[in-house]
Amino acid sequence: MKKILTIVASLCLAAGAMNAQELTNFSFGRGAAPVISPEIQADSVTFRLKADYATYVKLSGSWMPGFGGTVDMKRGENNVWSVKLPLPASDIYTYNFVVDGVAVNDPQNIQVQRDGTRFLNMLIVPGKMTENYGEANHRGTVSHPWYDSKILGINRRLTVYTPYGYETNPKKKYPVLYLLHGAGGDEEAWTSMGRAAQILDNLIEKGLAEPMIVVMPNGNANQQAAGTLNIPAKQMSMQDYQNPANRDSYVRSLCEEIVPFIEKNFRAIAKPESRAIAGLSMGGGHTITASNLYPEMFDYICPLSAAGSATPEQVATLKKAGVKLYFLACGNADFLFQGSQALDKTLTEQGLDHIYFVSEGGHTWSNWRLYLNTFAQKLFK
Amino acid sequence: MKKILTIVASLCLAAGAMNAQELTNFSFGRGAAPVISPEIQADSVTFRLKADYATYVKLSGSWMPGFGGTVDMKRGENNVWSVKLPLPASDIYTYNFVVDGVAVNDPQNIQVQRDGTRFLNMLIVPGKMTENYGEANHRGTVSHPWYDSKILGINRRLTVYTPYGYETNPKKKYPVLYLLHGAGGDEEAWTSMGRAAQILDNLIEKGLAEPMIVVMPNGNANQQAAGTLNIPAKQMSMQDYQNPANRDSYVRSLCEEIVPFIEKNFRAIAKPESRAIAGLSMGGGHTITASNLYPEMFDYICPLSAAGSATPEQVATLKKAGVKLYFLACGNADFLFQGSQALDKTLTEQGLDHIYFVSEGGHTWSNWRLYLNTFAQKLFK
Repeated sequence: MKKILTIVASLCLAAGAMNAQELTNFSFGRGAAPVISPEIQADSVTFRLKADYATYVKLSGSWMPGFGGTVDMKRGENNVWSVKLPLPASDIYTYNFVVDGVAVNDPQNIQVQRDGTRFLNMLIVPGKMTENYGEANHRGTVSHPWYDSKILGINRRLTVYTPYGYETNPKKKYPVLYLLHGAGGDEEAWTSMGRAAQILDNLIEKGLAEPMIVVMPNGNANQQAAGTLNIPAKQMSMQDYQNPANRDSYVRSLCEEIVPFIEKNFRAIAKPESRAIAGLSMGGGHTITASNLYPEMFDYICPLSAAGSATPEQVATLKKAGVKLYFLACGNADFLFQGSQALDKTLTEQGLDHIYFVSEGGHTWSNWRLYLNTFAQKLFK
Repeated sequence: MKKILTIVASLCLAAGAMNAQELTNFSFGRGAAPVISPEIQADSVTFRLKADYATYVKLSGSWMPGFGGTVDMKRGENNVWSVKLPLPASDIYTYNFVVDGVAVNDPQNIQVQRDGTRFLNMLIVPGKMTENYGEANHRGTVSHPWYDSKILGINRRLTVYTPYGYETNPKKKYPVLYLLHGAGGDEEAWTSMGRAAQILDNLIEKGLAEPMIVVMPNGNANQQAAGTLNIPAKQMSMQDYQNPANRDSYVRSLCEEIVPFIEKNFRAIAKPESRAIAGLSMGGGHTITASNLYPEMFDYICPLSAAGSATPEQVATLKKAGVKLYFLACGNADFLFQGSQALDKTLTEQGLDHIYFVSEGGHTWSNWRLYLNTFAQKLFK
């Protein structure tokens, strides 16, 4: 038995080498001391890249001026380029290297976000801001069911989070948060860049949020699923887009198809007081449209950095329907900030109790994670 | 209403630009004609990369000599480097660019596989080999539940595929295939590189395979989840690894914890004739170990390019237990080919009916997808 296992162990090593050979990803690192990147020290962070034949290497980070300025890296021993920078404030940032003008990911960092077609390395700076962004001890299940949309004429992929304990408490029913992404995003945006599963896991584990189901649909009416699945988008002409019949088709699919699909196939409480809707940017617009078109469906409404508006009449209707929480959030440097101020004013004038949560900064995932971490604690209570 | 929607549309465009600015991924493509890569024509494929300041650019592809040889690309108009190659035979390949010695992904290609810490672009060449590797019309649900392992002392992530119709047929029970990855892999290997969900979707849709649940655990005994989740691995010394008590701990967790977890939380048929086990390389070793230690648990046993062996006594025990299918597969150029020949011989000598499936080529995902596509049609029939 011992002999067999030794053989197995050597074979596994051989298999690893074979894979590496097939993949030819990295021409560096073998034999030499391992390159560590990024390396967080007390108050600094060092980035390193081995690049033997590069003329120049830069680092571009989302915390740098202009959301992605660059700093030069210096060639060191063994052609490892590096730069040591002051550690930015606690948060999740993205970065990449620029080698002779070409964007390159950090081969030492497996933590990668996808935003649309872009894969970017993450820098997670520990601290107060990120305390709910890492893995909790008790984790929910993330799944990707598909629903048939008659309204949109396509089969469509969802991301669904069920909280820890969902499987082991087969009689318990849960409230549901519908969480919508922005332009350029898809059904994986909130779990990738938004850390939605981690935030909910942590809040629920700490007793700060009610256990809930979170449904993250694909908000692009012509798309079946994220581009990574390579399913051609449904062809829509500009006329199709502008056709009033199509205009709110995604929001209608959400409220008339996705909500019933979830309430049938998951143990969801099918009542307005157990339904919340939230979304960022374009998804904030969808949130507002849904609350305008279906004022009695959701008792918790959270437009975040929203691209959308509501008339006094629509707000009056919503007030009459009995909303339990209206959480309006925007960054004070967001290009949509004025729109949020206008909506706050309309809500105030119509006497709809609401929270107007204004944060520092702009139209960023840093803010959207912060908003989710904030309003999720106020839902279904 | 129209006005609001126009505003929303412009805001969405603005939001997209803002994201692009924050991410600074690509310094190219804006304003210029779009770069298309890879572009498959009738019998050729062209790769392109815009790289203004590069000294040289190469292409490295898994179909090239030595599983990843390189060819030079030529600088063309507007600093777009390109190379046109004969289209390789139908299959899924991986590739990357090499810019001044540094591996770079293709920014125009969102189709990316992850193998361990490596992200690599896919080239999918349509044809007979890949006919079940794309998206079917009816798709199952892929989910990631977590199970508590007492044997390994950690909470661990699974990938579970439930077939199309699972949600809409709440009384139907399904057989289960346990599908194990190799060294360097994790619970996402079979769905990423192995196209397991697509293969099952297609086979089931065509009536070629029984609807089944597929469970893809993490086979690294010290790991809670794929490295992308950034959960530190459990520290194990070489002594820990070599301790006989730990030696088969993952296989014990699989058979004593994962199988019961699945049969409790999913609508699985809890009988040997409705359980199959298959695995590649190290996972083939796990498959053989599981069939040795738990000969009565699985009626379908499929070691693929397996790093493992079985004694005549173990095979005799298995025969006595009444195995319905023993599917042994290996590539004729695999460095483990001799081991598979030895196991074939032992199976023959012990009179255990089996299929010895020998394919062209070596220790590759091309073969493992082919094997899954082949043996999945023979399960539970």
